[in-house]
Amino acid sequence: MPTPLPEPLRFEDGALLVLDQRALPGEERWLRCERPAEVAACIRSMAVRGAPAIGLAAAYGIALAAGRGDDLAAAADELRRTRPTAANLGWALDRVVAARDPVAAARRLHAQQRDADRRIAEAGAAQFEPGDRALTHCNTGALATGGLGTAGGILALAWERGRLAHVWVDETRPRLQGARLTAWELGRLGVPHRVVADAAAGALIARGLVDRVVVGADRIAANGDVANKVGTYPLALLAERHRIPFYVAAPLATIDPATPSGEGIPIEERDPAEVSEEAPAFNPAFDVTPAELVTAIFTEAGTLEPPYAEAIARLPLG
Amino acid sequence: MPTPLPEPLRFEDGALLVLDQRALPGEERWLRCERPAEVAACIRSMAVRGAPAIGLAAAYGIALAAGRGDDLAAAADELRRTRPTAANLGWALDRVVAARDPVAAARRLHAQQRDADRRIAEAGAAQFEPGDRALTHCNTGALATGGLGTAGGILALAWERGRLAHVWVDETRPRLQGARLTAWELGRLGVPHRVVADAAAGALIARGLVDRVVVGADRIAANGDVANKVGTYPLALLAERHRIPFYVAAPLATIDPATPSGEGIPIEERDPAEVSEEAPAFNPAFDVTPAELVTAIFTEAGTLEPPYAEAIARLPLG
Repeated sequence: MPTPLPEPLRFEDGALLVLDQRALPGEERWLRCERPAEVAACIRSMAVRGAPAIGLAAAYGIALAAGRGDDLAAAADELRRTRPTAANLGWALDRVVAARDPVAAARRLHAQQRDADRRIAEAGAAQFEPGDRALTHCNTGALATGGLGTAGGILALAWERGRLAHVWVDETRPRLQGARLTAWELGRLGVPHRVVADAAAGALIARGLVDRVVVGADRIAANGDVANKVGTYPLALLAERHRIPFYVAAPLATIDPATPSGEGIPIEERDPAEVSEEAPAFNPAFDVTPAELVTAIFTEAGTLEPPYAEAIARLPLG
Repeated sequence: MPTPLPEPLRFEDGALLVLDQRALPGEERWLRCERPAEVAACIRSMAVRGAPAIGLAAAYGIALAAGRGDDLAAAADELRRTRPTAANLGWALDRVVAARDPVAAARRLHAQQRDADRRIAEAGAAQFEPGDRALTHCNTGALATGGLGTAGGILALAWERGRLAHVWVDETRPRLQGARLTAWELGRLGVPHRVVADAAAGALIARGLVDRVVVGADRIAANGDVANKVGTYPLALLAERHRIPFYVAAPLATIDPATPSGEGIPIEERDPAEVSEEAPAFNPAFDVTPAELVTAIFTEAGTLEPPYAEAIARLPLG
């Protein structure tokens, strides 16, 4: 690969360094967190975002709390309340709080994420064919996971293997993670890409310009319903109508077997000012794609296919 | 109505005054056009936009050419090439160029548009019921037509008649006609509304927060396929899946009987820099909604219902 992928989190010298994703791609600014509350602020403000990266940041937050002799349960509680939708957040907190050595546990989760991302990328890239034009939403690359990325990792590997010609990048309003982060990552990797308005996906797909849609996930219910960045569900409907595959890429930590279906997934509503500072606005950050619209889910345990309820029930979760 | 609706075009003292919609809602700036080329520049730059308003602006452009003794065919040619998708543009030019008195003809088209808008609003508002929550895309109000508006006129009249509770306004990237113009117009009319990211429509509709979708059109083919602002087609798919009506509102001038289906409608690709100035981008300005997804089309000649090919063939067009 032409240039190394960006690293969203570094734990060194007893502090968590967070690459401030709000300032990218214009500026590479690092935020130094020494206390769990500072990590919580980074997650809330989306200085760090992406379900797996949120989980890792929270895990390192507990590591910081342990180093300071703070009450770990209180720190976990504060971190857990930052953002409600990503399953990875609670998953990571539960594991690190229960560990004998939280610092080692957080580092282990980070290493596991890198390994999971590589396996997800292998599973997904195997589905791609030379000349493929993919469409993706939001950012699911290295910045979103602390590893290779989920959907972004698949795109990176498919490109490396000559199985990808072009990526359409949804700009992903209101925070523009696609236009700012995904385009930046793809540029570093040398992958041909173009940014489009989120609303343009229908025009592209109807014209036959998209061969596959691939996205990440913030929480996957036991029946396979997928909560992901708002705007994902319409893409799945378009893919179904035009008979192109709609793929989801996520580590097992994103799967929440305790939530039966998408109806039970908490959907975060963020500050309306992210959408408009002048007009009254409403800002749901996620939507739910029904399992029936999902062609396959790529995980580190392999490729899940319908019926998802059965595939998920067989997984080594928990 | 609480405040008068904005007027996008004024023809006085031998000049066309264009309300610069790029500066709204922050600033009310008027551009004075004395030559057809200046009108063409206003259309190209979207200082004036909205299919009916584009048609009227072009008609007044011919009126200016006639007043100057310019060659009308050359002026019409320049105006026609400004934007390819809106059927109203060529329709209005053909009528004014063929008229004995182009100034009177342009004024007559403007009066006809106001009358058509009122009839469209009557036809559409009759379908609304008290408590309805509508979702709309782009701007289709007074700014877009020089009258009451098409879809926006329906919303205004439905509100006046107590048949509308709330409007969800797609912000409409990349030019934000929804967030800037529609929200401003609805605010002036006192209609409760909230702006959402275009990608959020799926989340709203899936949660049961939308009772009707109503949009305008830039060109309607002979079979009822509808070209409208990019992002319209996904809304129609969502409406179909969730069994809510998907309405189109347009004057007869938007119907192009010479184009058999949506495949033949020219789709404008605008400057990619409208989407992103940093990343490579692609910017199709319209998409095509297949007729089968359209519940009804409101026109000044009444409500068209499927099968549209037959309903359109019966219309007094041309």
